[in-house]
Amino acid sequence: MADKTTVAVVGCGLIGASWAALFLRAGHDVRAWDPDPESLGGFRGRVATPLAQLEQIGGPTVLGELHLGADLGDALEGARLVQENAPENVSLKQDLYAQIEARVADDVIIASSTSAHPWSHLSVGMKRPARLITAHPFNPPHLVPLVEIFGTDDAVVAWAEAFYSGIGSAPVRLKKEAVGHIANRLASALWREAVHIVAEGIAGVEAVDKALVNGPGLRWSVLGAHMAYHLGGGAGGMAGYLDHLGTSQEKRWASLGNPSLTPDVLEKLVNGVTAEAAGRSIAELEAERDAALIALAKLRQKSE
Amino acid sequence: MADKTTVAVVGCGLIGASWAALFLRAGHDVRAWDPDPESLGGFRGRVATPLAQLEQIGGPTVLGELHLGADLGDALEGARLVQENAPENVSLKQDLYAQIEARVADDVIIASSTSAHPWSHLSVGMKRPARLITAHPFNPPHLVPLVEIFGTDDAVVAWAEAFYSGIGSAPVRLKKEAVGHIANRLASALWREAVHIVAEGIAGVEAVDKALVNGPGLRWSVLGAHMAYHLGGGAGGMAGYLDHLGTSQEKRWASLGNPSLTPDVLEKLVNGVTAEAAGRSIAELEAERDAALIALAKLRQKSE
Repeated sequence: MADKTTVAVVGCGLIGASWAALFLRAGHDVRAWDPDPESLGGFRGRVATPLAQLEQIGGPTVLGELHLGADLGDALEGARLVQENAPENVSLKQDLYAQIEARVADDVIIASSTSAHPWSHLSVGMKRPARLITAHPFNPPHLVPLVEIFGTDDAVVAWAEAFYSGIGSAPVRLKKEAVGHIANRLASALWREAVHIVAEGIAGVEAVDKALVNGPGLRWSVLGAHMAYHLGGGAGGMAGYLDHLGTSQEKRWASLGNPSLTPDVLEKLVNGVTAEAAGRSIAELEAERDAALIALAKLRQKSE
Repeated sequence: MADKTTVAVVGCGLIGASWAALFLRAGHDVRAWDPDPESLGGFRGRVATPLAQLEQIGGPTVLGELHLGADLGDALEGARLVQENAPENVSLKQDLYAQIEARVADDVIIASSTSAHPWSHLSVGMKRPARLITAHPFNPPHLVPLVEIFGTDDAVVAWAEAFYSGIGSAPVRLKKEAVGHIANRLASALWREAVHIVAEGIAGVEAVDKALVNGPGLRWSVLGAHMAYHLGGGAGGMAGYLDHLGTSQEKRWASLGNPSLTPDVLEKLVNGVTAEAAGRSIAELEAERDAALIALAKLRQKSE
């Protein structure tokens, strides 16, 4: 483990709880705060579940300490990093950053978990915008390693990359900000075609999901999309692939769907996913997802 | 294991070898044929690698027998299923089907591994088109369970689904034929955005692949894209998600990229993947991919 760090977790919903579990499990101290006393009061309970799941995965552990802040200033005490998980409201976040900046030293980094807003909007009005990064986790954050990072100060971003690597995450740096970062753009692009396939009656919701999980999804868990085409090109690699099949790929792109979420399509999606759930509640489905992700995390840990 | 079946594997390249290994490992007999004597002659050797990989995965096994056909008629002797893996040339395949139909009983099923051609093109001119199905595997077929099936005869498709399930594959039936079936359409949609992200300079090839493998790819190996949005909707499920975020999703779709494979983009892709490969040859990268897929297959087998 790297040096022990104190992290302020600001915003104590499920994402905040997931982050806190990761930080604590890596031996860092966490100081949490939420403007809603009820949310803050229930935080220790909400952290317990992801923490127990991380325990199942195993690995070395010296648990850090979790402190619930009496107020924002108390939560920021001694923090090197502030992980902000406030609601997706730009002015609310900007206001929060102003409050944080008024209370912390110059070298404290603020990392926003935002999935919706670009750095250039969030940083407006900051005294030291260079201290802000977006650090977007992928749900559920304690079981999926990806953290997408954008910031303008190389040293700040480098520190953050090292920190998130140190807690077992997989930081990926964006060179240019983009709404949806990388992962949600890819997910959105895939889902558009998945919806098109359902809308066109090519296959139902459950069939599409089964195909993904047993096919490209499985392979993308070990091999990136670009690298897959490199291997698909045989001895010629990506250059060979593009040379032989680049034109077919462009034709395929042109043939992809552009569905609208009409009432008819909505009905197909809702009915389809209801059939796929086969009576399992959201909580049961999440538990199944988590169990599978925990098994994969154990496997990754063994192979390290 | 279900009843022992004799399968004719027609077309003895890598896909044919992969299929043969799966069939043999499940206890079925395989009779192979290829018009190219050299390809047929090397077949036993090419089957050895996937067979050894399946052995690593383990599970019950009564190996079937592999017979190299003296000619097409010999390979078809006693076959209930013909798995066709000929080059992606419609008239060549049609000609092959005519030769097969002239030699087999009425109830023999022909399954084409085609990734490129729809059933309606391939079946033209057949005496019994209902016996033809497309049964598209995902590469590498012996380590990725998906088989996408389309056919017009319910009984034929049902038999094929049961057969592929019996060898440990995950058959998915299409209700309507589509070029690219399901999986390659999803892969193509995702890759279009992956290329866009590189073309726009948002992130490099390696960063995009790292984000996919550690984020959505990992999650799609356990949870389908539709089901992910069902869970993303909280207690309201898919209906709640669409109600709250359907409009944002449509906006996101509109913001996705539509790149062209210009010389500049080609260069970025080739240079990017070369950097990601970091000196590893195609064979080395394939071996790494296979090792990871074998570990995942072992995990799946344990949890069954």
